[in-house]
Amino acid sequence: MLKIGVIGCGAIGRDHIRRLRNLVPGATVAACSDYFRESAEKTAQQYDISHIFDTGEELIGSGEVDAVLIASSDTSHAGYVLESLKQGKPVFCEKPLAQTSADCEKIIEAELALGKRLVQVGFMRRYDPGYREMKRIVESGELGNPLMIHASHRNMHQPQGLTSEMGVSNIAIHELDICRWLLGDEYKNGQVLKVRQSSYSVKGYDNPQIVLLETGTGCRIDVEVQLSDGYGYDIQCQVVCEKGTISLPDPYAVVTRSDAGRSVPILTDWSQRFIQAYDIELNEWVRAVENNSCNGPGAWDGYAACVAADTLNRSRNTGRFMEIQMMRKPDLYDVC
Amino acid sequence: MLKIGVIGCGAIGRDHIRRLRNLVPGATVAACSDYFRESAEKTAQQYDISHIFDTGEELIGSGEVDAVLIASSDTSHAGYVLESLKQGKPVFCEKPLAQTSADCEKIIEAELALGKRLVQVGFMRRYDPGYREMKRIVESGELGNPLMIHASHRNMHQPQGLTSEMGVSNIAIHELDICRWLLGDEYKNGQVLKVRQSSYSVKGYDNPQIVLLETGTGCRIDVEVQLSDGYGYDIQCQVVCEKGTISLPDPYAVVTRSDAGRSVPILTDWSQRFIQAYDIELNEWVRAVENNSCNGPGAWDGYAACVAADTLNRSRNTGRFMEIQMMRKPDLYDVC
Amino acid sequence: MLKIGVIGCGAIGRDHIRRLRNLVPGATVAACSDYFRESAEKTAQQYDISHIFDTGEELIGSGEVDAVLIASSDTSHAGYVLESLKQGKPVFCEKPLAQTSADCEKIIEAELALGKRLVQVGFMRRYDPGYREMKRIVESGELGNPLMIHASHRNMHQPQGLTSEMGVSNIAIHELDICRWLLGDEYKNGQVLKVRQSSYSVKGYDNPQIVLLETGTGCRIDVEVQLSDGYGYDIQCQVVCEKGTISLPDPYAVVTRSDAGRSVPILTDWSQRFIQAYDIELNEWVRAVENNSCNGPGAWDGYAACVAADTLNRSRNTGRFMEIQMMRKPDLYDVC
Amino acid sequence: MLKIGVIGCGAIGRDHIRRLRNLVPGATVAACSDYFRESAEKTAQQYDISHIFDTGEELIGSGEVDAVLIASSDTSHAGYVLESLKQGKPVFCEKPLAQTSADCEKIIEAELALGKRLVQVGFMRRYDPGYREMKRIVESGELGNPLMIHASHRNMHQPQGLTSEMGVSNIAIHELDICRWLLGDEYKNGQVLKVRQSSYSVKGYDNPQIVLLETGTGCRIDVEVQLSDGYGYDIQCQVVCEKGTISLPDPYAVVTRSDAGRSVPILTDWSQRFIQAYDIELNEWVRAVENNSCNGPGAWDGYAACVAADTLNRSRNTGRFMEIQMMRKPDLYDVC
Repeated sequence: MLKIGVIGCGAIGRDHIRRLRNLVPGATVAACSDYFRESAEKTAQQYDISHIFDTGEELIGSGEVDAVLIASSDTSHAGYVLESLKQGKPVFCEKPLAQTSADCEKIIEAELALGKRLVQVGFMRRYDPGYREMKRIVESGELGNPLMIHASHRNMHQPQGLTSEMGVSNIAIHELDICRWLLGDEYKNGQVLKVRQSSYSVKGYDNPQIVLLETGTGCRIDVEVQLSDGYGYDIQCQVVCEKGTISLPDPYAVVTRSDAGRSVPILTDWSQRFIQAYDIELNEWVRAVENNSCNGPGAWDGYAACVAADTLNRSRNTGRFMEIQMMRKPDLYDVC
Repeated sequence: MLKIGVIGCGAIGRDHIRRLRNLVPGATVAACSDYFRESAEKTAQQYDISHIFDTGEELIGSGEVDAVLIASSDTSHAGYVLESLKQGKPVFCEKPLAQTSADCEKIIEAELALGKRLVQVGFMRRYDPGYREMKRIVESGELGNPLMIHASHRNMHQPQGLTSEMGVSNIAIHELDICRWLLGDEYKNGQVLKVRQSSYSVKGYDNPQIVLLETGTGCRIDVEVQLSDGYGYDIQCQVVCEKGTISLPDPYAVVTRSDAGRSVPILTDWSQRFIQAYDIELNEWVRAVENNSCNGPGAWDGYAACVAADTLNRSRNTGRFMEIQMMRKPDLYDVC
Repeated sequence: MLKIGVIGCGAIGRDHIRRLRNLVPGATVAACSDYFRESAEKTAQQYDISHIFDTGEELIGSGEVDAVLIASSDTSHAGYVLESLKQGKPVFCEKPLAQTSADCEKIIEAELALGKRLVQVGFMRRYDPGYREMKRIVESGELGNPLMIHASHRNMHQPQGLTSEMGVSNIAIHELDICRWLLGDEYKNGQVLKVRQSSYSVKGYDNPQIVLLETGTGCRIDVEVQLSDGYGYDIQCQVVCEKGTISLPDPYAVVTRSDAGRSVPILTDWSQRFIQAYDIELNEWVRAVENNSCNGPGAWDGYAACVAADTLNRSRNTGRFMEIQMMRKPDLYDVC
Repeated sequence: MLKIGVIGCGAIGRDHIRRLRNLVPGATVAACSDYFRESAEKTAQQYDISHIFDTGEELIGSGEVDAVLIASSDTSHAGYVLESLKQGKPVFCEKPLAQTSADCEKIIEAELALGKRLVQVGFMRRYDPGYREMKRIVESGELGNPLMIHASHRNMHQPQGLTSEMGVSNIAIHELDICRWLLGDEYKNGQVLKVRQSSYSVKGYDNPQIVLLETGTGCRIDVEVQLSDGYGYDIQCQVVCEKGTISLPDPYAVVTRSDAGRSVPILTDWSQRFIQAYDIELNEWVRAVENNSCNGPGAWDGYAACVAADTLNRSRNTGRFMEIQMMRKPDLYDVC
């Protein structure tokens, strides 16, 4: 039974705890901690968790914890990941891996020093059956080489304080990961475009915005990013290959004919859209840890997304594509 | 220039006149008549029609009229068709051809006596590109033999006085024609089923009802018939063949994502659903008359639909399939 | 940790064992048995199962087993269910519950004697998110009363020895359950229709066939049943209500544009279609057993489907609807 | 009866002649001409056209011709349009209006001198019921302001000699017109992006390429342009508004379930995609000429598309958005 310690008992942390309890045999949530002790206590009580720690560091160091799951605030991620590596414990870190490329590089160095991959980043879309099938088709070559990706990432309600930069580094970050993964390619150039401001969005922040990327092989990617689209949570992705296109489907949902229209519901928040992907993700992570292996997005993937986001945010208002400069990829990350 | 006389200046009659004027070169509406003279006068004025006749018979007999289009009340159809045949003039008759099988037989006899097909019945769905493509695929054999048809004919608002029987003889009549045509087969048995009454329909009349048919080769057909479906005018048809199915598409209409749903509008009345089919129908009819030929649904098709409707209405409440008995098909109707 | 004993180590049994192991925390497969001892041994080895029994009865009686899962041959179901009830153990039985209505009645009597529901039948479609949403909409009343269901159950390959009767009692049995459940209504009449024989089906057996049903409130149901449809495993279901229709969606699958067509793949066998439903089903069953409660389809539902199937098979070739006669529903089954 | 003279008897010219004959009452093709006299003669014979002229100029000047339709080679358009204006005759010119902005300006000046709009440009998509409905929704304001357009223009086979520049000026020209029209806005900036070259396209030419545009109000437009997409002729367009999106539908086409897939055919060349739009376009043009009015895309629209195309082609390989500079819009073009 793998004993997991969860750092961060907010909505996402509790959702992962529920998931580990109800859907992932072979794992138990042995410990939790939160910046607000009360929140950790409530969670521990609700889910029968034996150990509560005042700090993430204590949780990571405890003998009660075999592996760590980080669902705390974004700014704390890098520190907890580094601490987990110091303790030699497998760690699952919600995205983003770190706030800066520099912090990502430190994590990579720590892993390289260990000579072993222990970090997984929570890019759950890679576990969605739709994206997986898209990748399978791209890689099969049956439609020829991929040439372009057209994507949209639309949210219904703009969270308080979510700046223009975070629209890229926290929202479009999922596309920054999934497009690399679908194409099996790294980014070369990028640019963020300003768009006519929606009157439904918070003043002073760019919404919508468009992310443009070019990969090493010349593939072009456009991602529409909306923080308050006025109608729902809607994720679209189309890979255009030499002999055809492949599109992510809308979720499985009943079709109604009523009131002079044929309609299919669209989700209004993100929590249900990739719920199956989250389930598979944690299940496969626990299996991998059990087998002392790794198969998910790792520190390198967290780094790549972070470098792209940084560069894109710097390109804003320049009217130019900016070069996305990454370090050479260490061999450790070629394996899985 | 083909001089056409139109009998009946109600909504359908005027729509055909507009169509002949605006979309069918080579034809002119030379005369019109209506049970209410005032209606004919108004129409004549609106569309610059030179001759108004007090009766359909006078219009048919006039030297100003080369061909006749009948859009008057259902009960008057058979009489005007017979009169047109007496005058040896091509006649386009809105469905139904006649109210009884006996009247249809008289029309067939009259055509047989002329030794020439002059009658076309307004089964416009045969001109819809969707049904045409369905027929093409069925006949190509690429999906094997047809085995079943599932169809729905749903109207939004039940017209005053439209009885249970008329739900079959005036509404489902389109399916009675199109299914024979799609399958290239005649009916053997039929039955109407009563369904739980919709509270939105007129009391005392059966709505919805289900029509079941079996063809000579054993194909099964089910047609859901609704007179007040609560949401729109919706026509669905699926042919199930040995190796696959073919479905009539929903009409060409924009897809909207808004208000937590992806939706496509559904029409609320019948007038627009097959408007392209009506356009093609009249255009091809005029071309055929010009060439002294025929290529549309004729008296035999009007008769076949009428016999099926009669039998189905007699089967109501018997709980049994009833044999659909037709006369032997005269050779005249094998040609086209 | 709930100790489950699995009877039957064929494809379905092994799939359930895998599921219990990988996706259902709180349960362990403690024992297994099979008609072929070798099959049980292989399975035990593959999945680390401690106890193998020569007979289902021994397994059911063992102190190592808290709850029983039956996935053996159809003819053995009723006996194992009765034995489980004798031992007072919760039992999950793959459909059908029994081969005859009489055996179903014995099971109901045994449960009534216990005064407690212990039996769940494997009608997994009730756990599919699509059917669940359909039921939610029907019950919400937002579209008015349900009036009709149009359904298709199409299989690609006809299993050896699957007779016309089994097309109803083993294949359409899923629709016999799901339609009752969607409508919240019992069947009153039923009839099976013969259809033009597909040349791709086994000679001597009826394929396709059409099942017609009428419920107590007068709702009409038609189910197309195909054992070798020539193209895929395809399940369709539409509930027609007074103010609109609700349709089961096709599974979540990528959309490809290639080779002059826009296409979505259709599964070629049943095993993947309701895989999520199977996962939820077993998970919820284990939760219910843990809580000493029940929430799934029970003995009454197994009985209702069995009576309908029997009657339908007797109606074959009569050309008439036959009355579906059920015993009065015991209060025990009103609760859940 | 409006007497039309057609210049250019190639595929498009003959198709328009057929259309005028078969679908547009009130017009007659009175004359034709072609660079190859033989081609004009053949066409005249096939369609019973009385007058053949050696040159477009003679045709335009003839008393037999009331209105001119130009379907000759692109380079000849501007000259014939100017000649028609000189003769004060209404002229329908296939796109492009001219090869250079300078020539478009000459045409505008000529129309301004006449003080009357006589020129219509063949941007037939404005007559497509799908685009029309999209515009209606945008203008209704029900989805708020438009913010972005995502479009794809994909052709199956790259015509010989179609250069990278022509991909913009002759292919994407339709999007350059339709996007302005949908948004009711002019372009401010534009850029063409190079994309990884498809191995199925002609070497040396850019295929695919991406057109980026920004309008005066800050709307962003991206158009994927493919000359050999490997699968079909596929036109996609989505307008993203503040409260939702509106998408152009795929054409009306039957849905087939066969061979492990649900599929809808995609056209393989452009000729059928907007055939209904072409029909409506010519019909409305003849009605407008009859009424001495105008309601279609005019010289200003031809100019706007031309300026955008020129600027886009100059931006190629600069990596920058380039300003799209237009003259002030004369009042004459505000009316319709």
